[in-house]
Amino acid sequence: MTEVTNVKAYGNEAADAPLKGLNINRRKPTPHDVEIDILFCGICHSDLHTARSEWGPTQYPCVPGHEIVGKVTAVGNHVDKFKVGDTVGVGCMVDSCRECQYCKEHKEQYCERGTIFTYGAPDKHLGGYTFGGYSERIVVDENYVLSISGKVDLAATAPLLCAGITTYSPMRHFRVSPGQNVGVVGIGGLGHVAIKIAKAMGAHVTAFTTSESKFEEARRLGADETVLSKDPEQMAKYAGKLHFILDAVSAKHDINAYLNLLRVDGSLVLVGVPPEPLPVAAFSLIGGSRSLAGSLIGGIKETQEMLDFCAEHNITADIEMIDIQTINEAYDRLVNGDVKYRFVIDMASLKK
Amino acid sequence: MTEVTNVKAYGNEAADAPLKGLNINRRKPTPHDVEIDILFCGICHSDLHTARSEWGPTQYPCVPGHEIVGKVTAVGNHVDKFKVGDTVGVGCMVDSCRECQYCKEHKEQYCERGTIFTYGAPDKHLGGYTFGGYSERIVVDENYVLSISGKVDLAATAPLLCAGITTYSPMRHFRVSPGQNVGVVGIGGLGHVAIKIAKAMGAHVTAFTTSESKFEEARRLGADETVLSKDPEQMAKYAGKLHFILDAVSAKHDINAYLNLLRVDGSLVLVGVPPEPLPVAAFSLIGGSRSLAGSLIGGIKETQEMLDFCAEHNITADIEMIDIQTINEAYDRLVNGDVKYRFVIDMASLKK
Repeated sequence: MTEVTNVKAYGNEAADAPLKGLNINRRKPTPHDVEIDILFCGICHSDLHTARSEWGPTQYPCVPGHEIVGKVTAVGNHVDKFKVGDTVGVGCMVDSCRECQYCKEHKEQYCERGTIFTYGAPDKHLGGYTFGGYSERIVVDENYVLSISGKVDLAATAPLLCAGITTYSPMRHFRVSPGQNVGVVGIGGLGHVAIKIAKAMGAHVTAFTTSESKFEEARRLGADETVLSKDPEQMAKYAGKLHFILDAVSAKHDINAYLNLLRVDGSLVLVGVPPEPLPVAAFSLIGGSRSLAGSLIGGIKETQEMLDFCAEHNITADIEMIDIQTINEAYDRLVNGDVKYRFVIDMASLKK
Repeated sequence: MTEVTNVKAYGNEAADAPLKGLNINRRKPTPHDVEIDILFCGICHSDLHTARSEWGPTQYPCVPGHEIVGKVTAVGNHVDKFKVGDTVGVGCMVDSCRECQYCKEHKEQYCERGTIFTYGAPDKHLGGYTFGGYSERIVVDENYVLSISGKVDLAATAPLLCAGITTYSPMRHFRVSPGQNVGVVGIGGLGHVAIKIAKAMGAHVTAFTTSESKFEEARRLGADETVLSKDPEQMAKYAGKLHFILDAVSAKHDINAYLNLLRVDGSLVLVGVPPEPLPVAAFSLIGGSRSLAGSLIGGIKETQEMLDFCAEHNITADIEMIDIQTINEAYDRLVNGDVKYRFVIDMASLKK
């Protein structure tokens, strides 16, 4: 029988129930496990979608959170990557089969036997379902734990574990490089990090937004140019100009208007999931050998690469810190887009 | 004033008029020109769309034809690539600006100042519009003329100038390679050549068709497997299996059903142009880092590479030869999909 420790957490017990204090079990570290005292946990829109069963039925109780930064408090006797006191991170995944073609290609997020996501996935150790980072402590196999530089702002680094890798991975895949023209559509949790990463990769960045009020913000974040996407005249100036577009918009929008901004061989990558199918005019693609692609987070190896890249380039998320007791208000504000740009929970508040 | 020669051709003078014998002018070769006696000209569906103004208003008279094979009969005094008697080809383009970024990247089909297509494009030498290959002779700048091995079947090679490069180019772009699983959707003029080229690249080829009656044909063309695309059970067996899909279907079809057959990082390339926008579910792409792309013919350098590749691998189109006097019947049969798989005009018939 697996030994457990009871820890404090925050979660909900039904789609329409608010989040509240809960007690959950964490396994004691097995030989390859790392036990982490959670310092900060970012709030991703996925947390809210899952807690509210908006992406299909959720297993309750649900303890969200997959942008986790903390300190190692114990390690299993076969762990060689981490030691007590290390600063570490945990992102969207805590395990996978490690044997399928995608695990072997370092794309554990596409594991053929089912990625074990940080919350809501089957827990092979304790039965039931995994619990995320809205908790005092988490225990994770060392191969799914990331190393974090002690020199960075830990709270503002937490969101990189999801928002950072989600935007970094497609930019690497499509080889964003110095001098290229990169567009970022939607200046929110993902988009604001995407602007910073694209700039650090040497790109000339154009931010597209539906509101002129975001122009100044976009420039502050590093955008070289700003475009009001609902103004066809402004859009027309960029026709055929962009090498790559990162589209972080989850609402319905005209994808052909953006495809036509790509130069020949350019790619537009969706990282948001609009609710309805996007009508794509074949000629938007054929007329310039263009690609419309999608991307889902990134593998563990690439997540480490992203964290190192961000540490080197001094990239963190812009955050608003909250105590966990205000999580339900934060969720409501998230729904209204009222955050610049990511809420991060100070997990010390859970110990109050 | 440019000197001209009057030659026989076949074309039409209005969208609803049949094609008939016409006389047109060809310029006498200028210093960089190659004069070609046309032996064979393939019939592409684009010829019909253009002749009938189905892709917007066409300039009449219209002389279609961009799958041209012939013999050099004269060269300008600065031509060094070709000499009288050489076997040569002309594809979809006869000129471009040569100075823009895309011309410099050998993607003349995307010339920023406007590719000069083989028919229906502004003719800078004679004024008016370019006339295509349904004619005795054509005069083309040597940089837009392809070299054809004297050892190949010339009539069956003609369709490669459009159907060959249209399918070869995206397979090279997406690095189709030995052992990969490649799908070809639609077994017609483009698809039947795509099967042969994919096989020659070492891929394991699966042909998708709406009719079981085409299974035997697809295998004869080289397909390793055949799938009835309207049978969800057969389709389900290929979920997540294909590295690359070439989609040559111009009719409306369910693109998500095919996107879901791609493995992680796989690409589906459209080379047909369905009349209405394709509804693309974002998750079909995001769920596997997949790409939906388009591709338009290919540049001159790559067309030469394709011709050499096909000559080396003994690849030609499957053709039905016709006399030019039966062109209108051939067009009607083309509309009905009644050809295996490409009509080629024996241009000797024009001299009758």
